[in-house]
Amino acid sequence: MAQRAKRGWPAARCRRSSVLAALDIALRLLDWLGIAAFAASGALVASRKQMDAVGFILIATVTGFGGGTLRDLLLGRTPVFWLQTPELLAIAVGAALMVFFAAHLVESRFRVLLWVDAAGMALYAVLGAEIALLAGADPWAAVLLGVVTATGGGILRDVICGELPLILRREIYITAAAAGAVAYVALRLAPLPRDAALVSGLLLAFGIRAAAIIRGWSLPPYRARPAREYPDRR
Amino acid sequence: MAQRAKRGWPAARCRRSSVLAALDIALRLLDWLGIAAFAASGALVASRKQMDAVGFILIATVTGFGGGTLRDLLLGRTPVFWLQTPELLAIAVGAALMVFFAAHLVESRFRVLLWVDAAGMALYAVLGAEIALLAGADPWAAVLLGVVTATGGGILRDVICGELPLILRREIYITAAAAGAVAYVALRLAPLPRDAALVSGLLLAFGIRAAAIIRGWSLPPYRARPAREYPDRR
Amino acid sequence: MAQRAKRGWPAARCRRSSVLAALDIALRLLDWLGIAAFAASGALVASRKQMDAVGFILIATVTGFGGGTLRDLLLGRTPVFWLQTPELLAIAVGAALMVFFAAHLVESRFRVLLWVDAAGMALYAVLGAEIALLAGADPWAAVLLGVVTATGGGILRDVICGELPLILRREIYITAAAAGAVAYVALRLAPLPRDAALVSGLLLAFGIRAAAIIRGWSLPPYRARPAREYPDRR
Repeated sequence: MAQRAKRGWPAARCRRSSVLAALDIALRLLDWLGIAAFAASGALVASRKQMDAVGFILIATVTGFGGGTLRDLLLGRTPVFWLQTPELLAIAVGAALMVFFAAHLVESRFRVLLWVDAAGMALYAVLGAEIALLAGADPWAAVLLGVVTATGGGILRDVICGELPLILRREIYITAAAAGAVAYVALRLAPLPRDAALVSGLLLAFGIRAAAIIRGWSLPPYRARPAREYPDRR
Repeated sequence: MAQRAKRGWPAARCRRSSVLAALDIALRLLDWLGIAAFAASGALVASRKQMDAVGFILIATVTGFGGGTLRDLLLGRTPVFWLQTPELLAIAVGAALMVFFAAHLVESRFRVLLWVDAAGMALYAVLGAEIALLAGADPWAAVLLGVVTATGGGILRDVICGELPLILRREIYITAAAAGAVAYVALRLAPLPRDAALVSGLLLAFGIRAAAIIRGWSLPPYRARPAREYPDRR
Repeated sequence: MAQRAKRGWPAARCRRSSVLAALDIALRLLDWLGIAAFAASGALVASRKQMDAVGFILIATVTGFGGGTLRDLLLGRTPVFWLQTPELLAIAVGAALMVFFAAHLVESRFRVLLWVDAAGMALYAVLGAEIALLAGADPWAAVLLGVVTATGGGILRDVICGELPLILRREIYITAAAAGAVAYVALRLAPLPRDAALVSGLLLAFGIRAAAIIRGWSLPPYRARPAREYPDRR
């Protein structure tokens, strides 16, 4: 998602003080952290499937770039961002290889997967909404695209690997992403400065998701009757 | 799919009589009906999976907008239509919530799913072909894009939910969508007026699909030998 | 992928000798061969699922055009290539129908599937990288897009049909595609003539994949601990 730095506000850049430059570096780091977190979550699923190193890299990059790629395609921002930013690719590959060589050290890979996935989701929800706003989307569309960015990579990861998508599990997930994106967009329109809005949205999304993981928060499911199988005539 | 109204024939609009205006409203209603039908079919699958309300909305919107989104991406019409039409989103969300609160009232959700899916398929086959023609596609490409519009959302719905895709079941499905799209495109080239072509294509697609559901019509499958499992070395 | 012929080097075309024209025809044939191979691999999966003829055509076209479509979408080259080239569609449909009527003649459909899939993969890895280079992508991005072109169709095929993706099986697959794309791009930058680079990359990718199939070559997988099931709360 680093193209924000390339395309954003060229005029403002000239009168930017060193304080703002430091903030910009912090935001760039958040970008990188989001990619690393989602890439690591993809690599953890690959480790559950006992893939080889190339499979780790494939699933890690699909997870890390999938949501942002969907967002860019829907907005018509092509070529998509990761074709222009080799450093992001390096981060995803690095995260994949780190998991490949170190995943056996952790007690419960599924537990770690839940948490790094939560971090990536929170980061992408606000960063995705921001990029959509900068691309000229309406506020409600920016919220939607934030949710797409936050959930797209994880859905692709789980569908390709044949896992039950995390977002379809009982705990609150999309709701957390939507809350973070709504908070970011609302605060930007307030208008608050970008950094305050980003941090608020990020903390809200991560906080809700963390509570859902720890306390098992969930929304009431539809329970009237369990599904019957499709009459099997395959 | 309501951008038809925005982009279509601005010159013709000036000399439009009130009769034609009424027809235009009828067509707009068909758009909305198609979205509502597919969204409801997605929500019915969500109910079979016992998701929460947010999951209902996610699957409903993916199903309702998936086919048209694929069509727009393949044609290069971005930003895609639903980022510009909040009313369509409202329809999909409304259909999802209606199913969430009312699905337990119906006897066989799978049966209802088959029929609303059939209605959505017939509508999208002709409306998708029309939008492709308006975007300048060749007639054969417009037929293909009609089929993509009619089947894309349902395939996404079933793949994300881990269900056996409806279109891969034995009954006639894609054939019905293709027949409707071919009829519409052929009648438009005849040339017949848009409304006559739309209604004819729609009835043909729905009629074939309805017969397939009721009478179990099917094409001869490949039957030489059942599949063996992949040698499992996962 | 035949749009290469349309968009490539118009100036060079004027002073093209008949020798070069013959080479151009050979390359066009490779394009067609790649589509036919992947389409046939898709039809073979359809035969394993006992679909009808329309299902064969659907899966064959998704497999044959999926990788190139992804590449075009990521690059922003729309409308995508197969909406402009009816002859490619005819090839895919022809391959699908040939498998529908002849697949029962072969002893092991899975074995044939592996080999035609390998041929398609090798062809698409170099042709995909070439199209990306021509579209102005950086060399490393061209390698990535070659891999996307080579693997995208097969992944879509397996995900839609609910099969374990071939690329996630233990044998070397993506590595072979990446090697072919790297070889092609490196030789083009050397610079070697296009035809020499194409043939070298193609043979390298196919050779590695063939060795992997015959000898069971594989990369060391992650083996620390098998995956536990997700705690099932679906």
